Amino acid sequence: MKSFTREISLTIPTRRAIHSIHQEVADMVRESGVREGLCLVNAMHITASVFINDNESGLHHDYEVFLERLAPHAPVEQYQHNGSEDNGDAHIKRQLMGREVVVAITEGQLHLGPWEHIFYYEFDGRRRKRILVKIIGE
Amino acid sequence: MKSFTREISLTIPTRRAIHSIHQEVADMVRESGVREGLCLVNAMHITASVFINDNESGLHHDYEVFLERLAPHAPVEQYQHNGSEDNGDAHIKRQLMGREVVVAITEGQLHLGPWEHIFYYEFDGRRRKRILVKIIGE
Amino acid sequence: MKSFTREISLTIPTRRAIHSIHQEVADMVRESGVREGLCLVNAMHITASVFINDNESGLHHDYEVFLERLAPHAPVEQYQHNGSEDNGDAHIKRQLMGREVVVAITEGQLHLGPWEHIFYYEFDGRRRKRILVKIIGE
Repeated sequence: MKSFTREISLTIPTRRAIHSIHQEVADMVRESGVREGLCLVNAMHITASVFINDNESGLHHDYEVFLERLAPHAPVEQYQHNGSEDNGDAHIKRQLMGREVVVAITEGQLHLGPWEHIFYYEFDGRRRKRILVKIIGE
Repeated sequence: MKSFTREISLTIPTRRAIHSIHQEVADMVRESGVREGLCLVNAMHITASVFINDNESGLHHDYEVFLERLAPHAPVEQYQHNGSEDNGDAHIKRQLMGREVVVAITEGQLHLGPWEHIFYYEFDGRRRKRILVKIIGE
Repeated sequence: MKSFTREISLTIPTRRAIHSIHQEVADMVRESGVREGLCLVNAMHITASVFINDNESGLHHDYEVFLERLAPHAPVEQYQHNGSEDNGDAHIKRQLMGREVVVAITEGQLHLGPWEHIFYYEFDGRRRKRILVKIIGE
């Protein structure tokens, strides 16, 4: 069995943003040398998500509107978590969008449908965060 | 390490429906010959989900009502994604229900609780879609 | 390839509660002897979740408020699933919080970010439930 481990570091300059990590992950799969296996990609921070959906800016706007309607950032006092912080909404939004994706590797490549694209969703940015890529297989 | 890869193709005749893929996946686990491992099942399209819950029609109705209340299909103009499409709601519903499940394989079988049942949830049907089953283990 | 399988049994005395299973899972990873691999942790019941977020009671209160607002327990008649049961809300809440987490194992330990903590979320307790931990790797 082969394994491959890499952390991606990034700082999103705004509070929230959707950021493509697709090419980086695809490159790591090639670098790993794994032909058949599984690739786990997860946010290492609990106010961020990794998800797979369309690379289309209108949809990304719709996600923003949807999540902000369900768990608005302000007023920050609505969340008990916000004693000394202001990111209570971010912990909820991340649960709705998910922590991780697991993607199959077949014949040395990410095995994805035609429009599947891997994104990082930051809900409390402006500081350094990490994403983990773990590949196992043969 | 053994691996097994299979795509399930299907066309749901309505816009939305919950469709059992449980037996097909269980059969693939047996066919794979894997005794101990993991089985990934994911929608390959970004307007559909794979999820595990109860095989009970009342609950499936409740999911429909819940998702349609949170992210209604109409009016389609409420979603920026719907420039030339009308499936903005489907991309949101799929995030709430999830893209994938990862199920343990123990002693050659899906290792599931008493009521766990694997479903495909179509949110924008009436065209051919695919589901991926990837098994790794020994 | 090594594999490790263990079910955790527990009875939550209230209808809903967030319960840490972090240390138990970390101990199993050590016991498994796997140095590089993946660790799947999933609820075996369909009215419960396994999720990763902050070990902070204010946030756990916020999750309760959020989920109860989106899918309230009462009136129970609002859910078709509640013919002879009263847990329709629990099946919805569990979908929002997720069934499972997949965590990387690196150098013999759970590979987690600084605040990642593994929890079980019970939505219909007062009876015995199970959680599955499956580890594969080398």
